[in-house]
Amino acid sequence: MLHEEMGDATRVTLSSIAEQAAVSLPTVSKVLNGRGDVAPATRARVEALLATNGYSKRGDAAASAPLIELVFHELDSAWAIEVIRGVERVARANGMSIILTESGDRHSPGVGWIDGVLQRNPAGVILIFSDLSADYKQQLATRNIPFVVVDPAGDPAPDVPSIGSANWSGGFAATQHLVSLGHTRIGMISGPDEMMCSRARVGGYRAALEAAGIAFDPTLVVEGDFHPEGGQRRAMELLQRSERPSAIFSGSDLQAMGVYEAARTLGLSIPADLSVVGYDDLPVARWVGPPLTTVRQPLTEMAEEAAKLVLQLRKEPQLENRRMDLATSLVVRQSTAPLPAGAATAEPA
Amino acid sequence: MLHEEMGDATRVTLSSIAEQAAVSLPTVSKVLNGRGDVAPATRARVEALLATNGYSKRGDAAASAPLIELVFHELDSAWAIEVIRGVERVARANGMSIILTESGDRHSPGVGWIDGVLQRNPAGVILIFSDLSADYKQQLATRNIPFVVVDPAGDPAPDVPSIGSANWSGGFAATQHLVSLGHTRIGMISGPDEMMCSRARVGGYRAALEAAGIAFDPTLVVEGDFHPEGGQRRAMELLQRSERPSAIFSGSDLQAMGVYEAARTLGLSIPADLSVVGYDDLPVARWVGPPLTTVRQPLTEMAEEAAKLVLQLRKEPQLENRRMDLATSLVVRQSTAPLPAGAATAEPA
Repeated sequence: MLHEEMGDATRVTLSSIAEQAAVSLPTVSKVLNGRGDVAPATRARVEALLATNGYSKRGDAAASAPLIELVFHELDSAWAIEVIRGVERVARANGMSIILTESGDRHSPGVGWIDGVLQRNPAGVILIFSDLSADYKQQLATRNIPFVVVDPAGDPAPDVPSIGSANWSGGFAATQHLVSLGHTRIGMISGPDEMMCSRARVGGYRAALEAAGIAFDPTLVVEGDFHPEGGQRRAMELLQRSERPSAIFSGSDLQAMGVYEAARTLGLSIPADLSVVGYDDLPVARWVGPPLTTVRQPLTEMAEEAAKLVLQLRKEPQLENRRMDLATSLVVRQSTAPLPAGAATAEPA
Repeated sequence: MLHEEMGDATRVTLSSIAEQAAVSLPTVSKVLNGRGDVAPATRARVEALLATNGYSKRGDAAASAPLIELVFHELDSAWAIEVIRGVERVARANGMSIILTESGDRHSPGVGWIDGVLQRNPAGVILIFSDLSADYKQQLATRNIPFVVVDPAGDPAPDVPSIGSANWSGGFAATQHLVSLGHTRIGMISGPDEMMCSRARVGGYRAALEAAGIAFDPTLVVEGDFHPEGGQRRAMELLQRSERPSAIFSGSDLQAMGVYEAARTLGLSIPADLSVVGYDDLPVARWVGPPLTTVRQPLTEMAEEAAKLVLQLRKEPQLENRRMDLATSLVVRQSTAPLPAGAATAEPA
């Protein structure tokens, strides 16, 4: 096995690492391939030496398994299937399969995951809305397994390959649309504050208001969680204030469905009493009542680009162009309408 | 490699197969492990001999990769993510990963798929809404890779392990609910006729009508495709008839969203003018307006049971109890209401 996997150049390096770590060559190989039966302290020593020696496993495409690893923060959203479709399309076109992992609450895959990846030796890893610890990144780098982040949750370092979308522009377009309809009291239900995409959408909202000469009112921006339940709760708060907004921009379509439910509960008609703009343009957006005006985020295309990028990085690890944002666009349907004349400030419900 | 994978008993069989096929033992091994570089005619001869000799690769769990293969008919539905979640839960609990394949239009995975499976040697295969050709089944059987069908599309042979749900009972409960509200003219938009689950739901609908002494009217049953667009088209047809139904039972929630859109188009209010019952209870069902009365099909639990069953079949290939239907249940929300007095036969819209 050792012979098949290593070229001469890397073989020398591995031998010298074995020597420096005072372990046998097979032990180094076990660590390299994610096999479990090495003492933790030995393993840590070998990993550190692999990294400091700048070791890189031979990276020809033939040496990797025809697999793309896909790691989700959570699978419980209509959002996820759009992304899976995009990666599946590229995987199929390249005769590859997808391996799926759900990272759960932590926005980062758990212990045990990395060993599985090293054993499987995929062509690359795609992280959705997640990030990797510095240790994991180093372990992937030394094995020449590239990774790409789709829609980064945090603020990844500049060298982290990522595919995002134009969140600020999306927030701007949504808000500008509402302003053009005469709305001035526009509520916003953002996504979680710690996610860069949420913050960028709020930034676009704020900029569009200011461009129209409307003062930014921070009390009109409330934090959601990208789920319908949170959208409903936050919309109930916004809509029961003494001066309720005449329009709400929701940071996701799923949250907007919660806004619809809140409006039904309060007897407000959309769009006559309340205009609503969503974000994402999930397939469901055109089937809610009324069909939802929303910002289209090209999720499937983003996933496709991420899959193509990760395969390219496998062949060309030094690739320069490794970050990209796809464009967003406003899709106007029937949930937004002009502010009724004389209602520049909406009355309490 | 050969040594590690085969016990003594099977080794004899492989040698005798090599002898009967007049090929070398490594060639038989290549066919067994899905390696491509064997002439098609040779390969077919070896496959046939493996089958007729009743060969079965050694099946201890340790010999398989920690993978579960998941094959979808199509990934473009909110339905799919519910199933993936269920399999992911069981895979994670067993330290396994999921491999995902989309079979596309054919309801059966394409050429090339089976080689990948044989090479990967997963613990088992789960087919969603799909079926396998007899050849593929035989190839899996000789490698001792079990498979389980979730929600069989056709009418699988009695020995095919499958997890379904109580479709007939679901159709019965939905219709009985509408009958109990006074509806007598109840339209049904079924799923595709060739799917057993569709037919069973229509059967339940019919039985509930007959149990209530309401004559079954075949013109009230139209065939949908489980997608919103189809539901919308079919609902437009039903609702523009001279004697329109006062209620519609839709074979899926996604179709029901199309019914909602048709009702909006025609100015019919749900449930005042039209009662609607869906099927599946996808997460979106409680967020449409009004929240949808539907038949809950436990998709995630079905997928979990399928994953558990496939892992059990790997250990115990002769397992007797290999088919199961999980219960369905009616979830009453706000899309159904009593037929208004005096409207026993609804007037044309």
